[in-house]
Amino acid sequence: MELATYVDSLWILVAGILVMFMQPGFMLVETGFTRSKNSVNIVMKNFMDFSVGAVTYWAFGFALAYGGTTLGGFLAYGNFFLEGDSITYFFQVVFAATAATIVSGAVAERTKFSAYLLFQPFICGVIYPIVTHWVWSGQGWLGDLGFIDFAGSGVVHMVGGFAALAGVQIVGPRIGKYDDNGNPQVIPGSSMVAGALGVFILWFGWYGFNVGSALAAVDVDLAAIAVTTTLSAAAGSITAMYTSMISGKPNVGMTLNGALAGLVGITAGCANVNNLGAVLIGLVSGVLVVYSINFLEKKGFDDAVGAVSVHGICGIWGVLAVAIFDTTDGLVFGGGATLFLPQLIGILAIGAWAYGTSFIVFKVIDSTVGLRVTAEEEIAGLDATEHGTTAYGDFITKK
Amino acid sequence: MELATYVDSLWILVAGILVMFMQPGFMLVETGFTRSKNSVNIVMKNFMDFSVGAVTYWAFGFALAYGGTTLGGFLAYGNFFLEGDSITYFFQVVFAATAATIVSGAVAERTKFSAYLLFQPFICGVIYPIVTHWVWSGQGWLGDLGFIDFAGSGVVHMVGGFAALAGVQIVGPRIGKYDDNGNPQVIPGSSMVAGALGVFILWFGWYGFNVGSALAAVDVDLAAIAVTTTLSAAAGSITAMYTSMISGKPNVGMTLNGALAGLVGITAGCANVNNLGAVLIGLVSGVLVVYSINFLEKKGFDDAVGAVSVHGICGIWGVLAVAIFDTTDGLVFGGGATLFLPQLIGILAIGAWAYGTSFIVFKVIDSTVGLRVTAEEEIAGLDATEHGTTAYGDFITKK
Amino acid sequence: MELATYVDSLWILVAGILVMFMQPGFMLVETGFTRSKNSVNIVMKNFMDFSVGAVTYWAFGFALAYGGTTLGGFLAYGNFFLEGDSITYFFQVVFAATAATIVSGAVAERTKFSAYLLFQPFICGVIYPIVTHWVWSGQGWLGDLGFIDFAGSGVVHMVGGFAALAGVQIVGPRIGKYDDNGNPQVIPGSSMVAGALGVFILWFGWYGFNVGSALAAVDVDLAAIAVTTTLSAAAGSITAMYTSMISGKPNVGMTLNGALAGLVGITAGCANVNNLGAVLIGLVSGVLVVYSINFLEKKGFDDAVGAVSVHGICGIWGVLAVAIFDTTDGLVFGGGATLFLPQLIGILAIGAWAYGTSFIVFKVIDSTVGLRVTAEEEIAGLDATEHGTTAYGDFITKK
Repeated sequence: MELATYVDSLWILVAGILVMFMQPGFMLVETGFTRSKNSVNIVMKNFMDFSVGAVTYWAFGFALAYGGTTLGGFLAYGNFFLEGDSITYFFQVVFAATAATIVSGAVAERTKFSAYLLFQPFICGVIYPIVTHWVWSGQGWLGDLGFIDFAGSGVVHMVGGFAALAGVQIVGPRIGKYDDNGNPQVIPGSSMVAGALGVFILWFGWYGFNVGSALAAVDVDLAAIAVTTTLSAAAGSITAMYTSMISGKPNVGMTLNGALAGLVGITAGCANVNNLGAVLIGLVSGVLVVYSINFLEKKGFDDAVGAVSVHGICGIWGVLAVAIFDTTDGLVFGGGATLFLPQLIGILAIGAWAYGTSFIVFKVIDSTVGLRVTAEEEIAGLDATEHGTTAYGDFITKK
Repeated sequence: MELATYVDSLWILVAGILVMFMQPGFMLVETGFTRSKNSVNIVMKNFMDFSVGAVTYWAFGFALAYGGTTLGGFLAYGNFFLEGDSITYFFQVVFAATAATIVSGAVAERTKFSAYLLFQPFICGVIYPIVTHWVWSGQGWLGDLGFIDFAGSGVVHMVGGFAALAGVQIVGPRIGKYDDNGNPQVIPGSSMVAGALGVFILWFGWYGFNVGSALAAVDVDLAAIAVTTTLSAAAGSITAMYTSMISGKPNVGMTLNGALAGLVGITAGCANVNNLGAVLIGLVSGVLVVYSINFLEKKGFDDAVGAVSVHGICGIWGVLAVAIFDTTDGLVFGGGATLFLPQLIGILAIGAWAYGTSFIVFKVIDSTVGLRVTAEEEIAGLDATEHGTTAYGDFITKK
Repeated sequence: MELATYVDSLWILVAGILVMFMQPGFMLVETGFTRSKNSVNIVMKNFMDFSVGAVTYWAFGFALAYGGTTLGGFLAYGNFFLEGDSITYFFQVVFAATAATIVSGAVAERTKFSAYLLFQPFICGVIYPIVTHWVWSGQGWLGDLGFIDFAGSGVVHMVGGFAALAGVQIVGPRIGKYDDNGNPQVIPGSSMVAGALGVFILWFGWYGFNVGSALAAVDVDLAAIAVTTTLSAAAGSITAMYTSMISGKPNVGMTLNGALAGLVGITAGCANVNNLGAVLIGLVSGVLVVYSINFLEKKGFDDAVGAVSVHGICGIWGVLAVAIFDTTDGLVFGGGATLFLPQLIGILAIGAWAYGTSFIVFKVIDSTVGLRVTAEEEIAGLDATEHGTTAYGDFITKK
């Protein structure tokens, strides 16, 4: 191989390592935003997300995404229990684990651990890999249509977000989330510092996610991708904060989710838009996520961390934004005319696939082993009932 | 472009990502060293430091530092709302955010959030960029004088430290910091583990900061810079601990600040001194920071995290140390004769500029919107009064 | 130098930075798994591990490992107070600090800080460097025998684990660890979230540890090493969790240690085994670590974090596993016939050396300054008695 190829591989490796580090980012956001009586349960789900994800994706997930032979652009097969092709596997497995872990937070604080374990192989090993085959395999029907999703606003975040939506819907809201009149109540999390650290870790890892998706370091302007990513996250953080001030004081949860919203929003177009476009994408993401979280909450969807809004709704926006702000042909609105249709088809297909398949899997789990713990277990906390322990041994916490 | 150029850019990108990760490092140091009733406020300030910093530096900060045309070596203009030149922007914006976030901790626990938001664009967008123009732009008057500051003991840390000094002076000490006789009291922080994690994250990110400042990976001995950085931090940590034992038991806050002091001290000379020089620089930094913190505290400067001493005072020491320990001409004291004057002028100019401009901005803010919260708000905690929340929902904390 | 050499050095540098970040990983595992009254003490030990380690390894550790002249393959000398050879120093010093910090957790909650400070220079500066001379210097007797330990299951983890065993044995169990009948009791840690973050950080840093040990980026398949590392950790995490369910609910401490066990297990063979081998190595590691922790606990060895089992026992397994799963000659069991003997000799030599020298050093410390705090100090907590402070200022913790 040529030296340039090794340099490319080195960057993909480093980027993959950064993306892997998003796992503790998600863990901290999820434990930080939820109550201390469920922290161990979230830790366990996050460790299993990456662990089960890695083994599953090795055994058959990679095979369905990049196995070599395509079944009509819909899924691949071949290379089960993968040996070789390590750099593709490594960079993709950390993406697969990201898609899975998005669901974890949304359904937190009332989902059975055993039920969650059953769901994981489906999203890491089937639901997500098939979408990557559609878009990124070079053989897929969505890629053939001209659908553009550089780093995965649709392929990763919409998949996680819409799977989360199905989970939230079927498992139902947490006890105490709504009062007798159906008005949503605030359930304070255990640590906003942990949540904020998690978001900063995710932001850090996102440079691997977006810039690494160039899959090269030579003959490409990697820094340009890092800059659009930075600007969109920054803009999302700022506008989410100001949007939250319309109905109160500058809200930390919304600000943190605003940064994530900006990151999800720019993910599809990070290599296709200019800096001004990135700021505008982030600006819209930050507003969108606040209204989406409030809207879903009012409609009875109890998403414990805002994952559906951050990843699902802003994922849609990110895919659409490519059609609006793409400048690769030199025009600010140049891509629009030809890009809108493939982007719309992609949104519908990915959303329907992720939601539909997840809905079926969660329903089957619910009607067999059961998806939700009992009310007594939920009130006592999953750490005690599911894991026989407590997360913060000698600290006193309120019930 | 040549392959070597891509390798250089790849390293600068990775280094910039590491420097970005210093943001949660600062956040953890600041929340860890202060009380739990103000943690959300610090989180919000840190998110805005990077978010407002990124947008500000894009809109006009870069223009004033590297805009192309210089106004007499004092500031540049051009390239507002930057497009292109991504790698320079990315590496510089994470430095700009570092300078800003140093101030955050010093004035913590009694500064209005709105007032802090007003200060941010000045330091990220004006005060810091102009200093970088002086030293690093290739067009600046300090660079022309022969002033050496490889990675920014002066350009970044003195700027942050002296801006912090102005802030601390104008906002005044926290309620309870001094007893009726004016003797300083210990205000215990919320988590020394968080603080220590923050320092380790900063140390980690500092490899990006110092080694990345080579702005190349080819034809340069990057590892030598990593080694001087390591040795100085290690020496600073050790001597700060032993210095703290003169008046008591091995103190964790001083040890952590000693590591940071060693890092700030080596930043200017990390590529110009040898390993022995690095150990000596760190050794002095660790002693200096303990005496500086105690001195400032006794003089009525209530710096909640020791930022003025760590970044300001050890920043001065770092710039001076280049003149003492520079070995690039092959002599241990070789650089001294010709280097002392430019280094002294640089210290005076940067210190006066950062302190003077920050003093004016803080004074204007103080006399308009007001810099400080009311005594009632301060006692209740900024999380409740400024953000309407609490950081650690279901943990019990003392009042 | 050639461009390829700079690319190699760049990767070793980045890998070294990742390994350095394992320090806060260990700190979080150790503070998370132990009680809040001893958190500051652990923070201080971890900072001194890296700080004293860096200075010690610079002054004489490097000299004994890679000093140039060998004394019969047993130790080197030369290059004391190192100047130059920066990349080797940097990558090795972070390994030395890892070996040291493994001991910290095992003997936590009852060891004198001053005694611990005395032990550090021995492991960073003598015990560990001599083993590296045996195996990795190109001059050592174990390397000459054909002993294979790619990234240090034996050289680093067995050294740390067996030093920890000696420490645990001599310092004795914590007050309250065993009831009057000698049955082990659970001592809950202060934060499983901190512990889990620590393990994720270690996992992240381990990519630097294992993949960086290639000491090159060109003409080598780095990603293959990242994949075996990932799969073994994942498998270890999963099987440890299921093993813990034999006697109860899915246990978070065992799951976290299972991931570490899988990482330690694959470290020796990460570049020599295929993906299936990696899964099997991790699978065994996860089971082994649970039984080892329970066994040692029953036998009266009170290892506060499970370090002896994770690093010592799984380190043995990792070295042995190379002989079983090596595929570098193209055969799954190909390496076995010729590899078993050198691997066995290596295990015996490294284990005996690390345990024996540490036993002597700990004994001498114990009979001079004393290794253990008084019962009153232990009950009050080391933060108060050794450091005059508390880690979580305004949080209420149980006594």
